[in-house]
Amino acid sequence: MSAGKLIGVGVGPGDPELITLKAIRALAEADVIAHFAKAGNVSHARTIAARHLRPEIIELSLVYPVTTELPKCGDGYRDALRDFYDEAAAAIAAHLDAGRLVAVICEGDPLFYGSYMHLHTRLAPRFPVEIVAGVTGMSGCWSAAGTPIAQGDDVFSVLPATLPEDELARRLSDADAAVVMKVGRHLPKVRRALNASGRLARAIYIERGTMADAKLIPLAAKPDDDAPYFAIVLVPGWEKRP
Amino acid sequence: MSAGKLIGVGVGPGDPELITLKAIRALAEADVIAHFAKAGNVSHARTIAARHLRPEIIELSLVYPVTTELPKCGDGYRDALRDFYDEAAAAIAAHLDAGRLVAVICEGDPLFYGSYMHLHTRLAPRFPVEIVAGVTGMSGCWSAAGTPIAQGDDVFSVLPATLPEDELARRLSDADAAVVMKVGRHLPKVRRALNASGRLARAIYIERGTMADAKLIPLAAKPDDDAPYFAIVLVPGWEKRP
Repeated sequence: MSAGKLIGVGVGPGDPELITLKAIRALAEADVIAHFAKAGNVSHARTIAARHLRPEIIELSLVYPVTTELPKCGDGYRDALRDFYDEAAAAIAAHLDAGRLVAVICEGDPLFYGSYMHLHTRLAPRFPVEIVAGVTGMSGCWSAAGTPIAQGDDVFSVLPATLPEDELARRLSDADAAVVMKVGRHLPKVRRALNASGRLARAIYIERGTMADAKLIPLAAKPDDDAPYFAIVLVPGWEKRP
Repeated sequence: MSAGKLIGVGVGPGDPELITLKAIRALAEADVIAHFAKAGNVSHARTIAARHLRPEIIELSLVYPVTTELPKCGDGYRDALRDFYDEAAAAIAAHLDAGRLVAVICEGDPLFYGSYMHLHTRLAPRFPVEIVAGVTGMSGCWSAAGTPIAQGDDVFSVLPATLPEDELARRLSDADAAVVMKVGRHLPKVRRALNASGRLARAIYIERGTMADAKLIPLAAKPDDDAPYFAIVLVPGWEKRP
Protein backbone atom coordinates (compact mmCIF):
# COMPACT_ATOMS: atom_id res chain seq x y z
CA MET A 1 0.00 0.00 0.00
CA SER A 2 1.36 3.44 -0.92
CA ALA A 3 1.49 6.31 1.54
CA GLY A 4 -1.32 8.83 1.47
CA LYS A 5 -1.02 12.52 0.79
CA LEU A 6 -1.55 15.59 2.94
CA ILE A 7 -3.17 18.68 1.40
CA GLY A 8 -3.32 22.04 3.19
CA VAL A 9 -6.42 23.61 1.68
CA GLY A 10 -7.03 27.35 1.95
CA VAL A 11 -10.79 28.02 1.83
CA GLY A 12 -10.54 31.82 1.81
CA PRO A 13 -11.50 34.57 4.23
CA GLY A 14 -15.13 33.74 5.05
CA ASP A 15 -17.38 34.45 2.06
CA PRO A 16 -18.18 30.90 0.81
CA GLU A 17 -17.80 32.13 -2.79
CA LEU A 18 -14.17 33.12 -2.18
CA ILE A 19 -13.09 29.47 -2.34
CA THR A 20 -11.05 28.33 -5.37
CA LEU A 21 -11.79 25.55 -7.87
CA LYS A 22 -8.59 23.85 -6.68
CA ALA A 23 -9.81 23.80 -3.08
CA ILE A 24 -13.19 22.39 -4.16
CA ARG A 25 -11.46 19.62 -6.11
CA ALA A 26 -9.21 18.78 -3.15
CA LEU A 27 -12.25 18.58 -0.85
CA ALA A 28 -14.14 16.40 -3.34
CA GLU A 29 -11.22 13.97 -3.63
CA ALA A 30 -10.25 13.80 0.05
CA ASP A 31 -10.83 10.65 2.11
CA VAL A 32 -10.41 12.58 5.36
CA ILE A 33 -10.87 16.23 6.26
CA ALA A 34 -9.32 17.73 9.36
CA HIS A 35 -9.92 21.16 10.87
CA PHE A 36 -8.95 23.09 13.96
CA ALA A 37 -11.69 24.26 16.32
CA LYS A 38 -12.08 25.80 19.73
CA ALA A 39 -13.98 23.68 22.24
CA GLY A 40 -17.71 24.27 21.74
CA ASN A 41 -17.25 26.18 18.46
CA VAL A 42 -17.75 25.11 14.85
CA SER A 43 -14.71 26.05 12.75
CA HIS A 44 -15.37 28.76 10.15
CA ALA A 45 -13.32 26.77 7.66
CA ARG A 46 -15.64 23.77 8.24
CA THR A 47 -18.70 25.93 7.55
CA ILE A 48 -17.21 27.26 4.30
CA ALA A 49 -16.19 23.77 3.15
CA ALA A 50 -19.42 21.99 4.16
CA ARG A 51 -21.18 22.05 0.78
CA HIS A 52 -18.17 20.57 -1.01
CA LEU A 53 -17.64 17.43 1.11
CA ARG A 54 -18.58 13.88 0.14
CA PRO A 55 -21.22 12.40 2.49
CA GLU A 56 -18.98 9.44 3.40
CA ILE A 57 -15.91 11.54 4.24
CA ILE A 58 -14.03 10.81 7.48
CA GLU A 59 -13.90 13.90 9.67
CA LEU A 60 -11.20 14.75 12.19
CA SER A 61 -11.88 17.70 14.48
CA LEU A 62 -8.70 19.03 16.11
CA VAL A 63 -9.95 20.75 19.24
CA TYR A 64 -7.53 23.19 20.86
CA PRO A 65 -6.80 22.35 24.50
CA VAL A 66 -8.59 24.50 27.03
CA THR A 67 -5.68 26.43 28.48
CA THR A 68 -7.45 29.27 30.28
CA GLU A 69 -5.83 28.20 33.54
CA LEU A 70 -2.33 28.69 32.07
CA PRO A 71 -0.69 32.08 31.46
CA LYS A 72 -0.26 32.60 27.69
CA CYS A 73 3.36 33.68 27.97
CA GLY A 74 4.38 30.74 30.16
CA ASP A 75 6.12 27.44 29.43
CA GLY A 76 3.05 25.46 30.50
CA TYR A 77 0.90 27.04 27.81
CA ARG A 78 3.58 26.56 25.17
CA ASP A 79 4.09 22.91 26.17
CA ALA A 80 0.34 22.22 26.13
CA LEU A 81 0.07 23.61 22.60
CA ARG A 82 3.13 21.67 21.44
CA ASP A 83 1.66 18.44 22.80
CA PHE A 84 -1.65 19.23 21.10
CA TYR A 85 0.03 19.76 17.70
CA ASP A 86 2.09 16.56 18.18
CA GLU A 87 -1.09 14.57 18.87
CA ALA A 88 -2.96 16.18 15.97
CA ALA A 89 -0.08 15.36 13.61
CA ALA A 90 -0.01 11.77 14.89
CA ALA A 91 -3.74 11.37 14.28
CA ILE A 92 -3.31 12.59 10.70
CA ALA A 93 -0.19 10.46 10.17
CA ALA A 94 -2.25 7.34 11.03
CA HIS A 95 -4.59 8.14 8.11
CA LEU A 96 -1.64 8.92 5.80
CA ASP A 97 0.02 5.62 6.74
CA ALA A 98 -3.24 3.91 5.76
CA GLY A 99 -2.89 5.42 2.26
CA ARG A 100 -5.58 8.10 2.62
CA LEU A 101 -5.78 11.58 1.13
CA VAL A 102 -6.12 13.99 4.06
CA ALA A 103 -7.23 17.61 3.48
CA VAL A 104 -6.63 20.05 6.34
CA ILE A 105 -9.00 22.94 5.76
CA CYS A 106 -7.75 26.40 6.70
CA GLU A 107 -9.35 29.83 6.73
CA GLY A 108 -7.43 32.22 4.47
CA ASP A 109 -4.12 30.91 3.14
CA PRO A 110 -2.55 27.82 4.78
CA LEU A 111 1.05 29.09 5.01
CA PHE A 112 0.28 32.69 6.03
CA TYR A 113 -0.19 32.86 9.85
CA GLY A 114 -2.19 29.60 9.87
CA SER A 115 -2.41 26.81 12.48
CA TYR A 116 -1.95 24.33 9.64
CA MET A 117 1.75 25.26 9.57
CA HIS A 118 2.26 23.37 12.86
CA LEU A 119 1.06 20.18 11.15
CA HIS A 120 3.01 20.93 7.98
CA THR A 121 6.38 21.17 9.73
CA ARG A 122 5.68 17.87 11.54
CA LEU A 123 4.39 15.91 8.52
CA ALA A 124 6.07 17.35 5.40
CA PRO A 125 9.39 15.56 6.12
CA ARG A 126 7.59 12.17 6.13
CA PHE A 127 4.72 12.37 3.61
CA PRO A 128 3.89 13.85 0.18
CA VAL A 129 2.33 17.27 0.77
CA GLU A 130 0.50 19.75 -1.44
CA ILE A 131 -0.67 23.27 -0.62
CA VAL A 132 -3.72 24.95 -2.13
CA ALA A 133 -3.22 28.70 -1.73
CA GLY A 134 -6.24 30.70 -0.57
CA VAL A 135 -7.48 34.28 -0.49
CA THR A 136 -6.16 35.79 2.76
CA GLY A 137 -8.32 37.46 5.38
CA MET A 138 -6.58 40.78 4.77
CA SER A 139 -7.31 40.65 0.99
CA GLY A 140 -10.94 39.95 1.86
CA CYS A 141 -10.95 43.00 4.15
CA TRP A 142 -9.45 45.59 1.79
CA SER A 143 -11.66 44.26 -1.02
CA ALA A 144 -14.78 44.61 1.14
CA ALA A 145 -13.65 48.14 2.01
CA GLY A 146 -12.86 48.96 -1.65
CA THR A 147 -9.52 50.36 -0.47
CA PRO A 148 -6.41 50.09 -2.68
CA ILE A 149 -3.76 48.99 -0.20
CA ALA A 150 -0.35 49.15 -1.95
CA GLN A 151 0.99 50.10 -5.37
CA GLY A 152 4.21 50.47 -7.33
CA ASP A 153 7.24 50.69 -5.06
CA ASP A 154 5.27 50.82 -1.79
CA VAL A 155 6.68 48.94 1.20
CA PHE A 156 3.84 46.94 2.79
CA SER A 157 3.99 45.48 6.33
CA VAL A 158 1.85 43.15 8.38
CA LEU A 159 2.16 44.04 12.07
CA PRO A 160 0.76 42.16 15.07
CA ALA A 161 -1.05 44.46 17.51
CA THR A 162 0.85 42.73 20.32
CA LEU A 163 4.00 44.79 19.55
CA PRO A 164 5.02 47.44 22.12
CA GLU A 165 3.54 50.87 21.39
CA ASP A 166 6.80 52.59 20.42
CA GLU A 167 7.79 49.74 18.11
CA LEU A 168 4.35 49.77 16.49
CA ALA A 169 4.62 53.54 15.93
CA ARG A 170 8.13 53.19 14.49
CA ARG A 171 7.10 50.42 12.09
CA LEU A 172 3.94 52.26 11.00
CA SER A 173 6.07 55.33 10.20
CA ASP A 174 8.55 53.16 8.30
CA ALA A 175 6.00 51.47 5.95
CA ASP A 176 3.99 53.00 3.10
CA ALA A 177 1.09 50.64 3.75
CA ALA A 178 0.28 48.32 6.65
CA VAL A 179 -2.19 45.89 8.16
CA VAL A 180 -2.39 45.60 11.94
CA MET A 181 -3.68 42.17 12.96
CA LYS A 182 -5.26 40.67 16.10
CA VAL A 183 -6.36 44.09 17.33
CA GLY A 184 -8.71 43.07 20.19
CA ARG A 185 -7.82 44.61 23.53
CA HIS A 186 -4.81 46.37 21.94
CA LEU A 187 -7.05 48.88 20.12
CA PRO A 188 -6.25 51.92 22.34
CA LYS A 189 -2.52 51.25 21.90
CA VAL A 190 -2.88 50.78 18.12
CA ARG A 191 -4.74 54.09 17.93
CA ARG A 192 -2.00 55.91 19.87
CA ALA A 193 0.72 54.38 17.66
CA LEU A 194 -1.16 55.40 14.50
CA ASN A 195 -1.57 58.90 15.85
CA ALA A 196 2.15 59.12 16.71
CA SER A 197 3.05 57.98 13.18
CA GLY A 198 0.67 60.46 11.51
CA ARG A 199 -1.43 57.66 9.99
CA LEU A 200 -4.57 57.75 12.14
CA ALA A 201 -6.67 59.72 9.62
CA ARG A 202 -6.08 57.10 6.88
CA ALA A 203 -6.73 54.04 9.07
CA ILE A 204 -9.79 51.83 8.59
CA TYR A 205 -11.13 49.50 11.30
CA ILE A 206 -12.67 46.19 10.12
CA GLU A 207 -14.50 43.34 11.87
CA ARG A 208 -15.64 40.17 10.04
CA GLY A 209 -14.45 41.66 6.74
CA THR A 210 -16.07 39.26 4.28
CA MET A 211 -19.11 38.20 6.31
CA ALA A 212 -22.65 39.50 5.79
CA ASP A 213 -22.44 41.40 9.08
CA ALA A 214 -19.07 43.07 8.36
CA LYS A 215 -18.28 46.31 10.19
CA LEU A 216 -16.03 48.78 8.35
CA ILE A 217 -15.47 52.29 9.70
CA PRO A 218 -12.72 54.90 9.87
CA LEU A 219 -10.69 54.04 12.96
CA ALA A 220 -11.02 57.66 14.08
CA ALA A 221 -14.80 57.05 14.42
CA LYS A 222 -14.49 53.74 16.32
CA PRO A 223 -14.70 53.82 20.14
CA ASP A 224 -12.00 51.97 22.07
CA ASP A 225 -14.57 49.81 23.84
CA ASP A 226 -15.11 46.42 22.24
CA ALA A 227 -12.77 45.24 19.47
CA PRO A 228 -12.76 41.45 18.93
CA TYR A 229 -9.47 39.55 18.70
CA PHE A 230 -9.67 39.08 14.92
CA ALA A 231 -10.46 42.74 14.09
CA ILE A 232 -7.86 44.33 11.82
CA VAL A 233 -6.80 47.86 10.93
CA LEU A 234 -5.86 48.79 7.34
CA VAL A 235 -3.44 51.63 6.66
CA PRO A 236 -3.61 52.24 2.89
CA GLY A 237 -0.46 53.28 1.04
CA TRP A 238 -0.14 54.65 -2.49
CA GLU A 239 0.03 58.26 -1.28
CA LYS A 240 1.74 59.56 -4.44
CA ARG A 241 -0.98 58.70 -6.95
CA PRO A 242 -0.14 59.76 -10.56
CA MET B 1 -31.69 53.48 -17.68
CA SER B 2 -29.69 52.77 -14.53
CA ALA B 3 -25.92 53.08 -14.36
CA GLY B 4 -23.87 49.95 -14.81
CA LYS B 5 -21.47 48.43 -12.31
CA LEU B 6 -17.71 48.02 -12.29
CA ILE B 7 -16.22 44.82 -10.83
CA GLY B 8 -12.50 44.39 -10.21
CA VAL B 9 -12.07 40.62 -10.51
CA GLY B 10 -8.98 38.90 -9.12
CA VAL B 11 -8.33 35.71 -11.07
CA GLY B 12 -5.44 34.47 -8.95
CA PRO B 13 -1.71 33.96 -9.50
CA GLY B 14 -1.63 31.91 -12.71
CA ASP B 15 -2.85 28.36 -12.08
CA PRO B 16 -6.34 28.42 -13.72
CA GLU B 17 -7.71 26.36 -10.78
CA LEU B 18 -6.77 29.12 -8.30
CA ILE B 19 -9.73 31.23 -9.42
CA THR B 20 -12.66 31.64 -6.99
CA LEU B 21 -16.34 30.81 -7.47
CA LYS B 22 -17.07 34.52 -7.00
CA ALA B 23 -14.75 35.47 -9.86
CA ILE B 24 -16.34 32.84 -12.11
CA ARG B 25 -19.82 34.18 -11.35
CA ALA B 26 -18.71 37.77 -12.05
CA LEU B 27 -17.20 36.70 -15.40
CA ALA B 28 -20.37 34.76 -16.31
CA GLU B 29 -22.58 37.77 -15.55
CA ALA B 30 -20.43 40.50 -17.12
CA ASP B 31 -21.51 42.29 -20.30
CA VAL B 32 -17.98 43.59 -20.86
CA ILE B 33 -14.57 42.34 -19.78
CA ALA B 34 -11.53 44.58 -19.78
CA HIS B 35 -7.90 43.64 -19.24
CA PHE B 36 -4.50 45.27 -19.38
CA ALA B 37 -1.95 43.95 -21.86
CA LYS B 38 1.43 44.86 -23.26
CA ALA B 39 1.52 45.48 -27.02
CA GLY B 40 1.87 42.13 -28.79
CA ASN B 41 1.23 40.08 -25.63
CA VAL B 42 -1.87 38.20 -24.46
CA SER B 43 -2.67 39.10 -20.84
CA HIS B 44 -2.20 36.23 -18.35
CA ALA B 45 -5.44 37.25 -16.67
CA ARG B 46 -7.25 36.90 -20.03
CA THR B 47 -5.85 33.37 -20.47
CA ILE B 48 -6.97 32.34 -16.97
CA ALA B 49 -10.45 33.81 -17.49
CA ALA B 50 -11.00 32.50 -21.06
CA ARG B 51 -12.99 29.39 -20.20
CA HIS B 52 -15.45 31.33 -18.02
CA LEU B 53 -16.55 34.01 -20.54
CA ARG B 54 -19.84 34.10 -22.43
CA PRO B 55 -19.32 33.84 -26.22
CA GLU B 56 -21.14 37.14 -26.84
CA ILE B 57 -19.16 39.16 -24.27
CA ILE B 58 -17.78 42.56 -25.31
CA GLU B 59 -14.02 42.66 -24.87
CA LEU B 60 -11.91 45.72 -24.14
CA SER B 61 -8.14 45.29 -24.34
CA LEU B 62 -6.29 48.09 -22.55
CA VAL B 63 -2.88 48.11 -24.23
CA TYR B 64 -0.11 49.92 -22.36
CA PRO B 65 1.50 52.67 -24.41
CA VAL B 66 4.88 51.82 -25.89
CA THR B 67 7.11 54.13 -23.90
CA THR B 68 10.54 52.66 -24.58
CA GLU B 69 11.68 56.01 -25.99
CA LEU B 70 10.92 57.75 -22.66
CA PRO B 71 13.08 57.46 -19.52
CA LYS B 72 11.05 55.62 -16.81
CA CYS B 73 11.87 58.16 -14.11
CA GLY B 74 10.92 61.17 -16.26
CA ASP B 75 7.81 63.35 -16.42
CA GLY B 76 7.13 62.25 -20.01
CA TYR B 77 6.76 58.60 -18.99
CA ARG B 78 4.57 59.48 -16.03
CA ASP B 79 2.36 61.73 -18.16
CA ALA B 80 2.01 59.09 -20.89
CA LEU B 81 0.87 56.53 -18.31
CA ARG B 82 -1.54 58.99 -16.70
CA ASP B 83 -3.10 59.77 -20.08
CA PHE B 84 -3.36 56.05 -20.81
CA TYR B 85 -5.21 55.37 -17.52
CA ASP B 86 -7.49 58.39 -18.15
CA GLU B 87 -8.42 57.05 -21.58
CA ALA B 88 -8.90 53.48 -20.30
CA ALA B 89 -11.19 54.78 -17.54
CA ALA B 90 -13.16 56.84 -20.09
CA ALA B 91 -13.63 53.80 -22.33
CA ILE B 92 -14.99 51.82 -19.38
CA ALA B 93 -17.14 54.73 -18.21
CA ALA B 94 -18.87 54.75 -21.61
CA HIS B 95 -19.98 51.14 -21.03
CA LEU B 96 -21.02 51.91 -17.44
CA ASP B 97 -23.06 54.91 -18.62
CA ALA B 98 -24.81 52.54 -21.02
CA GLY B 99 -25.88 50.42 -18.03
CA ARG B 100 -23.45 47.54 -18.56
CA LEU B 101 -21.72 45.32 -16.04
CA VAL B 102 -17.97 45.69 -16.66
CA ALA B 103 -15.49 43.18 -15.17
CA VAL B 104 -11.83 44.23 -15.15
CA ILE B 105 -9.84 41.01 -14.83
CA CYS B 106 -6.65 41.17 -12.78
CA GLU B 107 -3.89 38.68 -12.02
CA GLY B 108 -3.60 38.11 -8.28
CA ASP B 109 -5.66 40.43 -6.08
CA PRO B 110 -7.08 43.65 -7.62
CA LEU B 111 -6.17 46.06 -4.80
CA PHE B 112 -2.69 44.65 -4.01
CA TYR B 113 -0.11 46.22 -6.38
CA GLY B 114 -2.48 45.91 -9.35
CA SER B 115 -2.95 48.14 -12.44
CA TYR B 116 -6.71 47.95 -11.81
CA MET B 117 -6.25 50.40 -8.93
CA HIS B 118 -5.64 53.21 -11.45
CA LEU B 119 -9.11 52.59 -12.91
CA HIS B 120 -10.65 52.15 -9.46
CA THR B 121 -9.56 55.57 -8.20
CA ARG B 122 -10.90 57.20 -11.39
CA LEU B 123 -14.26 55.37 -11.51
CA ALA B 124 -15.24 54.49 -7.92
CA PRO B 125 -16.34 58.07 -7.13
CA ARG B 126 -18.86 57.97 -10.03
CA PHE B 127 -20.14 54.39 -10.34
CA PRO B 128 -21.13 51.41 -8.16
CA VAL B 129 -18.03 49.25 -7.70
CA GLU B 130 -17.43 45.75 -6.32
CA ILE B 131 -14.12 43.97 -5.72
CA VAL B 132 -13.61 40.22 -5.93
CA ALA B 133 -10.50 39.42 -3.88
CA GLY B 134 -8.06 36.97 -5.43
CA VAL B 135 -5.18 34.70 -4.41
CA THR B 136 -2.02 36.85 -4.64
CA GLY B 137 1.05 35.92 -6.63
CA MET B 138 3.11 35.70 -3.45
CA SER B 139 0.66 33.22 -1.83
CA GLY B 140 0.88 31.16 -5.00
CA CYS B 141 4.68 31.20 -4.72
CA TRP B 142 5.08 30.15 -1.07
CA SER B 143 2.39 27.49 -1.58
CA ALA B 144 4.22 26.09 -4.61
CA ALA B 145 7.42 26.09 -2.54
CA GLY B 146 5.66 24.49 0.48
CA THR B 147 7.31 27.14 2.66
CA PRO B 148 5.52 28.48 5.75
CA ILE B 149 6.09 32.23 5.45
CA ALA B 150 4.90 33.89 8.69
CA GLN B 151 3.39 32.79 11.99
CA GLY B 152 2.23 34.10 15.35
CA ASP B 153 3.67 37.54 16.10
CA ASP B 154 5.97 37.67 13.06
CA VAL B 155 6.35 41.00 11.27
CA PHE B 156 5.99 40.39 7.52
CA SER B 157 7.11 42.89 4.85
CA VAL B 158 6.75 43.18 1.10
CA LEU B 159 9.77 45.00 -0.34
CA PRO B 160 10.33 46.20 -3.92
CA ALA B 161 13.76 45.21 -5.26
CA THR B 162 14.10 48.79 -6.56
CA LEU B 163 15.00 50.03 -3.04
CA PRO B 164 18.63 51.15 -2.47
CA GLU B 165 20.89 48.35 -1.20
CA ASP B 166 21.40 49.72 2.30
CA GLU B 167 17.68 50.34 2.77
CA LEU B 168 16.86 46.85 1.52
CA ALA B 169 19.38 45.35 3.98
CA ARG B 170 17.99 47.44 6.86
CA ARG B 171 14.39 46.43 6.10
CA LEU B 172 15.30 42.75 5.68
CA SER B 173 17.02 42.83 9.08
CA ASP B 174 14.00 44.55 10.62
CA ALA B 175 11.36 42.02 9.45
CA ASP B 176 10.82 38.40 10.59
CA ALA B 177 9.60 37.40 7.13
CA ALA B 178 9.71 39.14 3.77
CA VAL B 179 8.95 38.93 0.08
CA VAL B 180 11.15 40.86 -2.35
CA MET B 181 9.24 41.68 -5.54
CA LYS B 182 10.20 42.66 -9.12
CA VAL B 183 13.66 41.16 -8.74
CA GLY B 184 14.83 41.23 -12.39
CA ARG B 185 18.10 43.07 -12.92
CA HIS B 186 18.26 43.89 -9.18
CA LEU B 187 19.16 40.29 -8.27
CA PRO B 188 22.87 40.92 -7.44
CA LYS B 189 21.85 43.83 -5.16
CA VAL B 190 19.10 41.76 -3.49
CA ARG B 191 21.63 38.99 -2.84
CA ARG B 192 24.12 41.43 -1.25
CA ALA B 193 21.36 42.94 0.93
CA LEU B 194 20.23 39.47 2.07
CA ASN B 195 23.82 38.57 2.87
CA ALA B 196 24.31 41.79 4.86
CA SER B 197 21.13 41.07 6.85
CA GLY B 198 22.12 37.45 7.57
CA ARG B 199 19.10 36.09 5.65
CA LEU B 200 20.72 34.75 2.48
CA ALA B 201 20.77 31.10 3.60
CA ARG B 202 16.98 31.10 4.16
CA ALA B 203 16.06 32.88 0.92
CA ILE B 204 14.22 31.11 -1.91
CA TYR B 205 14.24 32.34 -5.51
CA ILE B 206 11.04 31.78 -7.56
CA GLU B 207 10.08 32.34 -11.21
CA ARG B 208 6.55 31.69 -12.54
CA GLY B 209 5.51 30.37 -9.13
CA THR B 210 2.20 28.73 -10.00
CA MET B 211 2.85 27.81 -13.62
CA ALA B 212 3.72 24.34 -14.89
CA ASP B 213 7.27 25.50 -15.67
CA ALA B 214 7.90 27.09 -12.24
CA LYS B 215 11.51 27.45 -11.09
CA LEU B 216 12.10 27.30 -7.32
CA ILE B 217 15.63 27.12 -5.92
CA PRO B 218 17.58 28.36 -2.90
CA LEU B 219 18.76 31.86 -3.82
CA ALA B 220 22.29 30.84 -2.78
CA ALA B 221 22.25 28.32 -5.69
CA LYS B 222 20.90 30.77 -8.30
CA PRO B 223 23.43 32.56 -10.57
CA ASP B 224 23.08 36.35 -10.92
CA ASP B 225 22.70 36.10 -14.68
CA ASP B 226 19.11 36.14 -15.90
CA ALA B 227 16.29 36.90 -13.43
CA PRO B 228 13.04 38.04 -15.09
CA TYR B 229 11.24 41.18 -13.87
CA PHE B 230 8.49 39.25 -12.09
CA ALA B 231 10.79 36.84 -10.21
CA ILE B 232 10.43 37.06 -6.42
CA VAL B 233 12.50 36.09 -3.41
CA LEU B 234 10.87 34.60 -0.30
CA VAL B 235 12.48 35.05 3.11
CA PRO B 236 10.55 32.74 5.47
CA GLY B 237 9.99 33.81 9.07
CA TRP B 238 8.77 31.72 12.01
CA GLU B 239 12.30 31.13 13.30
CA LYS B 240 11.16 30.33 16.86
CA ARG B 241 9.08 27.25 16.12
CA PRO B 242 7.57 25.62 19.23
